[in-house]
Amino acid sequence: MSSTAIRPTIRNSGTPAAHALLDVLTGWGVRRVFCCPGSTEAAFLDAVVERSTELDIVLTTHESIAVAMADGAARITGRPQVAYLHTNVGMANGVAHLTAAQLANSPVLVLNGLKSTALQGRDGFTTVPYPRDMIRQHVKWARQVSSAGSLPSDVARALRTSAAEPAGPTWIGLPQDVMDASTPVGAALAAVPPMGVPRNRPAADAVAAAARMLAEATRPVLVAGGDVARHGATEALVALAEHLGATVLGEDRRGFQRTAFATSHPRFAGSYAPNHPAVRDADLLFFVGCRMFTEFEAPAENELPTRAGTIHAHVDAGEVGRLYPVDVGLVGHTGAVLDDLLAALPTVATPTPTPTPTPATATPLSATATPLPASATTLPASAGPLPATATRPPDVASERPVAAFPGHVGLAPIVAALVDGLGDDTTVVLDATTATPALLAALPQRRPDQVLLSSSGSLGWGTGAALGVRLAQPEYPVAAILGDGSFQFGIQALWTAMHYRIAVTFVVLNNGSYSAVGSALHRFDGAARRTGRWPGTDIGGPRIAEIAAGFGVPATRVETPAELTSALRAVRATAGPTLVEVLTGP
Amino acid sequence: MSSTAIRPTIRNSGTPAAHALLDVLTGWGVRRVFCCPGSTEAAFLDAVVERSTELDIVLTTHESIAVAMADGAARITGRPQVAYLHTNVGMANGVAHLTAAQLANSPVLVLNGLKSTALQGRDGFTTVPYPRDMIRQHVKWARQVSSAGSLPSDVARALRTSAAEPAGPTWIGLPQDVMDASTPVGAALAAVPPMGVPRNRPAADAVAAAARMLAEATRPVLVAGGDVARHGATEALVALAEHLGATVLGEDRRGFQRTAFATSHPRFAGSYAPNHPAVRDADLLFFVGCRMFTEFEAPAENELPTRAGTIHAHVDAGEVGRLYPVDVGLVGHTGAVLDDLLAALPTVATPTPTPTPTPATATPLSATATPLPASATTLPASAGPLPATATRPPDVASERPVAAFPGHVGLAPIVAALVDGLGDDTTVVLDATTATPALLAALPQRRPDQVLLSSSGSLGWGTGAALGVRLAQPEYPVAAILGDGSFQFGIQALWTAMHYRIAVTFVVLNNGSYSAVGSALHRFDGAARRTGRWPGTDIGGPRIAEIAAGFGVPATRVETPAELTSALRAVRATAGPTLVEVLTGP
Repeated sequence: MSSTAIRPTIRNSGTPAAHALLDVLTGWGVRRVFCCPGSTEAAFLDAVVERSTELDIVLTTHESIAVAMADGAARITGRPQVAYLHTNVGMANGVAHLTAAQLANSPVLVLNGLKSTALQGRDGFTTVPYPRDMIRQHVKWARQVSSAGSLPSDVARALRTSAAEPAGPTWIGLPQDVMDASTPVGAALAAVPPMGVPRNRPAADAVAAAARMLAEATRPVLVAGGDVARHGATEALVALAEHLGATVLGEDRRGFQRTAFATSHPRFAGSYAPNHPAVRDADLLFFVGCRMFTEFEAPAENELPTRAGTIHAHVDAGEVGRLYPVDVGLVGHTGAVLDDLLAALPTVATPTPTPTPTPATATPLSATATPLPASATTLPASAGPLPATATRPPDVASERPVAAFPGHVGLAPIVAALVDGLGDDTTVVLDATTATPALLAALPQRRPDQVLLSSSGSLGWGTGAALGVRLAQPEYPVAAILGDGSFQFGIQALWTAMHYRIAVTFVVLNNGSYSAVGSALHRFDGAARRTGRWPGTDIGGPRIAEIAAGFGVPATRVETPAELTSALRAVRATAGPTLVEVLTGP
Repeated sequence: MSSTAIRPTIRNSGTPAAHALLDVLTGWGVRRVFCCPGSTEAAFLDAVVERSTELDIVLTTHESIAVAMADGAARITGRPQVAYLHTNVGMANGVAHLTAAQLANSPVLVLNGLKSTALQGRDGFTTVPYPRDMIRQHVKWARQVSSAGSLPSDVARALRTSAAEPAGPTWIGLPQDVMDASTPVGAALAAVPPMGVPRNRPAADAVAAAARMLAEATRPVLVAGGDVARHGATEALVALAEHLGATVLGEDRRGFQRTAFATSHPRFAGSYAPNHPAVRDADLLFFVGCRMFTEFEAPAENELPTRAGTIHAHVDAGEVGRLYPVDVGLVGHTGAVLDDLLAALPTVATPTPTPTPTPATATPLSATATPLPASATTLPASAGPLPATATRPPDVASERPVAAFPGHVGLAPIVAALVDGLGDDTTVVLDATTATPALLAALPQRRPDQVLLSSSGSLGWGTGAALGVRLAQPEYPVAAILGDGSFQFGIQALWTAMHYRIAVTFVVLNNGSYSAVGSALHRFDGAARRTGRWPGTDIGGPRIAEIAAGFGVPATRVETPAELTSALRAVRATAGPTLVEVLTGP
């Protein structure tokens, strides 16, 4: 597609398959592979020994960590990241966090070492009859490579498909006999060369209709989804909000994946919720780059007030009008959507004009390709440290009642101390189920992706994701805020953090409880509430700082907000990982 | 089927579905549920509060532990055990160890709390489009319950199918709206009542042919598989071996699941291997209750010498002649097979005669049902502490070369110290990849199921499995012998062990290495071996005893065999869990 694409290292014949795999990966800019290997990965590991200047293995001691790290790094870089897992059992262990990558549209390529094809039909050790079935619904594309000759094209296609919009995970099964073979002449030529992702933009008539509605609205509300950050469109959204004088909300909390709009901006007013005053009052709702919606329960109250007009912009046509009616649907890359709207609105300067806008109706896929950034850490422009003003409406998300389940008290001062201790520049990965609403409302979000979250519900994602974020983003401090439940789920990340001295601060809010379960029992309002017995909730006991110290991670346990702030300030200059355990229970 | 079946607690109408679920579970003898819950499990947990005298929740802090515990308990009791997992992400986390239960024919029912059906079609939080696809190939039967009315029959059928031979896992999806509803009149009546598992026995002509071959063989070898123990047929196999004067081998090491024959018996001669002297010399091989075979690599040497006649007995017709030719196939319950053979051989006393042997050709499923044992810990009769003699041939399995990978030295004295410290009566759960052959050859195996292993390759299985074994078998000490890699995979079991004070001794052989990966690189004989760099192998660093202490588990680190023996003797009387870390690296 792009005539300037080059294949600098792809050799054409007689290449051992493992080296051909390295050729494709490095040709696409992959510089590290997050890996939890077994014996089937010998050929790959051996190839990395020979070519260690080209690619690093980042070893993990559980597959879930490899997948979460790849997701974290993919979110920051926007480029394909690779997790290499071992056989059926390793793949199984990676699935839960792969759902996080899937929901976040993270381009994660899962390479899965499999037993030899000769063994697959014989129910051999660590084989399953249908390996692809284990992963199929969690990825965009899944293929077991059938021979060394098709390895380059299969892997290149998987990388390309991961990155193509809507981005997401892909899977490649690599049988051991295929990896031990050599590619025939010409195999590399069939592989799609490294290329950027073409942008699509919405139809011209839809843009015109949406611009008209926005211009005519008197109380418009913009709902900024994660794709605003993922597509580097925050600056354009700021321009649109300021031009319209619109209130801006973050997407609904359950769907929140990443900071897309500075919460300190005077127009920002919290998370979307159907009972948010701005939503109730709006005459137009414009959902930009978010899902409508990530529902936790079947909607009792309609998530979408019907009084207001509704516009929904999303890169995935399947998301627009999926569950709720919209008046105008805009299918396109979030940056292109906002650029087109800004150009269509009267008297607005376009911050980043698209070079040659073409009529989009007939050709929804623009010929303009975005080249992959050369640096692994190219970030969208920050929305900047704009001052908060008194005009800011109340944050409804933070006002939602927290269940009065015993053991879940004193969160507010802890959150304040956290914010104080972490400072304004820290990137925060959140994995603390019941504490999330309060944290999301309070943590500094001054630039895109400053707070990252999973909407998958897979506990333990945060420990590994934070490591991946830190490797991809060395210029900011990185903290993972975890519940004690999530800590146990993602505990193996401590090993990788310590082995590679990855400077992440793990903050564990230890309330000794699955308080989400407690809250559910509270809402259920039955025997548990009547008797005060809460089965399935008490996970107290572990001294988490002591466990971390056993992994070699410098760790401290604190009991007061003041101690927490001091501890966080003390560890900010530490070169490697650190952990602070905060007792939040009664 | 059985007219004596009773439904003591199954109510007929207007029962909340969660209570109907408890009715079915307790009616089938289930007394505890291994559970890692989330909010979708509120109705179930609340029902358990009201009926806590009938059923216990055993809480785990990762789903993999719940599944491994259920597997361990199922192996000891032979009865269905239940793991209750939370939504798609919890199910995903349980899959790896479910493959262990599947390969061990463990009757494990996975109950999987799902989001409401109303949310499933809306891509709601923690839903997937096809939940059943995640689990289908890992279970015998999988069904999402469609309404409260069908819950009793679906769950009862899943329990019955789990227990039916060949036993294995089943899966029931329980949407939240179904669990919040009530059963209509008559719902319980449709549920299959608690019943025993009918035995099948082989065709009479096959029994006659096999008996003739056995009687005529001059150098017969019996290969005792895990089903000999699972079916309580060890005593019958001892009688057969002694009558024939046959050599007895354990099944091939990769397929080994559980002790089936006392290794101290004078006729026992190690693990099956094609190059075992007794196998090379045999004129008849009788494989009893094992797979033929669990292959690690595509067979270079034929696993089955063709000079000898071959008989294969298995409860699953699909296993007989699956990959290798057999002269006579005996499809039937292992106990029934051996009873029939003993009866057909001249001048042999039948130890446990089947009441009314019927011609089996026309009716392979006998009408004789084995009632479920009343006690959860009814064990097959022990093969007894028979003395070893000098006639015992060398154990080929233990003589297989151990790769000379650096960091994997000094195992022999450690193994000897382990055996010394654990004593003769301890049940040992093994999860220590590269140390397994040496341990399997050296550990006391004086009774069925004294050593338990997984053939799934899913690291970390051993920690949870040992807890399940201990709960089901309080009369013996239980130890889990783990590699440091497996320890990290199964680390969350320490929480459950400590919370419930389950007296398991965890022994961690800490060589700081994925030595299986090192061995594979060694065999690959490429750049790693040339340069002495071994990527993906170094997992050193953690002070495992310190980590365990952080969980509250009394733990000690030792460095010499003498210290190991002393430490193991010291902890034998401890009421709760203990951990001993042994440094085995250089």
